[in-house]
Amino acid sequence: MSTRSSKRQKTGDDQPYELIYWPTLPGRGEHIRLAFEASGTPYSDISNESKEGINVVLEQISDKNLGDDNGPPPLAPPILRHGSNVLISQTPNILLYLGPKLGLTPDTDNDPVGAYHVNALTLTALDGLSNEAHDTHHPIATGDYYEDQKPEALKKARDYRTNRLPKFLGYFQRVLEGPASKGGEYLYGGQLTYADLVLFQTVDGVIFAFPKCLAALRSSGKFDKVFAHYERVKAHEKIKAYLESDRRMKYGNGIYRHYPELDEED
Amino acid sequence: MSTRSSKRQKTGDDQPYELIYWPTLPGRGEHIRLAFEASGTPYSDISNESKEGINVVLEQISDKNLGDDNGPPPLAPPILRHGSNVLISQTPNILLYLGPKLGLTPDTDNDPVGAYHVNALTLTALDGLSNEAHDTHHPIATGDYYEDQKPEALKKARDYRTNRLPKFLGYFQRVLEGPASKGGEYLYGGQLTYADLVLFQTVDGVIFAFPKCLAALRSSGKFDKVFAHYERVKAHEKIKAYLESDRRMKYGNGIYRHYPELDEED
Repeated sequence: MSTRSSKRQKTGDDQPYELIYWPTLPGRGEHIRLAFEASGTPYSDISNESKEGINVVLEQISDKNLGDDNGPPPLAPPILRHGSNVLISQTPNILLYLGPKLGLTPDTDNDPVGAYHVNALTLTALDGLSNEAHDTHHPIATGDYYEDQKPEALKKARDYRTNRLPKFLGYFQRVLEGPASKGGEYLYGGQLTYADLVLFQTVDGVIFAFPKCLAALRSSGKFDKVFAHYERVKAHEKIKAYLESDRRMKYGNGIYRHYPELDEED
Repeated sequence: MSTRSSKRQKTGDDQPYELIYWPTLPGRGEHIRLAFEASGTPYSDISNESKEGINVVLEQISDKNLGDDNGPPPLAPPILRHGSNVLISQTPNILLYLGPKLGLTPDTDNDPVGAYHVNALTLTALDGLSNEAHDTHHPIATGDYYEDQKPEALKKARDYRTNRLPKFLGYFQRVLEGPASKGGEYLYGGQLTYADLVLFQTVDGVIFAFPKCLAALRSSGKFDKVFAHYERVKAHEKIKAYLESDRRMKYGNGIYRHYPELDEED
């Protein structure tokens, strides 16, 4: 057996991809689904495919799970299983793993630093447009109800709408204006990468959560390249088909929530 | 010129490492410093080496910076420059880049998935023991003073001490108990990786910020492996020398702050 085929087997390249995530909501699992969908890669979304699927999530995140010889236990989903030896967690980490396999990162031979740029853009979009968006409705305690931290949420959401959202949209506008985007159609290198999918999904999430605010930011004209990018990814043939399918789930009580009061000007 | 040497030149392997970060505080730059120090790698910490160094930080994060042909602009420091073609940002991304170069990730040939486990552990430590620790004193608005969000900070810190800190320490205890740690001395694979440096630094930070709480958690005996790991990394020959040097800066008004009221039981 050649080293090459031995490595392929070890990393599970010929094995099925299984997404281990909560059922019925897009959540952080959506970034992984979009990578599979955009590249036309078959995958199994186990907790949405059978009622028993959620048990796999619960076993993985159980306090009793110590992992195995191949890897540590995950703290939380999304988790990716690929063959018998690969089980990894953390959204940007799973995307980093999938990127080259799914053709969603720049070619390493031509651009050895490209994957790091795509990773940085991904981490930045998740920081500002996913994690911070979540914290607007849970500023005090993730484990408590929104209703129990509503006065604080009103303050946090105001800061988010006024300062943080424009800051992050302005950053991605600059990225798309910059020469490394190679024309501004995509974030990096003139081609679709998983960072584009993450930016699409996070912008879609904040549009759902803060529709009035995003409409105002859109009409300001300051972020035209970001909204054009959003529409471009949305119109991508495979993404469009996915968004129109019943595999695309509705937002609900996940990361992105639409509480009208958090979207209101004072 | 062989492909190999051509690639080496492209990725700047023979070039000096420059850390671009705020002066006078450990901050997120400390994870990068620890990687250089633990591996005995020379580096330049530019804003701590000259008064003019901070201008490089300010130019990089200026709203006018669009990046260049080689990469997008960074949103925020830490930023790593390595030769003329490599300029990357985001703490876990910089560590991902440095890991194999500094010998702080598992060998790819023997363990092709190891780097992803180290990345996931790093992301998890930064989530729960750095980002969330920061948010205890800035739960509402990063741009406002702590004094302007103190009632909310008291609530957030209580949740952090009671729920989040034990959750994350318990997670790393399980990682160190698990078979993939290969004995529990280090997080993964029985050898020092940059994830160990990140766990050390984040535990050190929360000990500074919440000394009473951490003393109580330590004496509970539930996280013995985490605290033994902390002491082990602290005693590592090169890390010990660094911590005793004047290059190790004191905590102040950065991510980790000691406000006694945030460390008090109700």
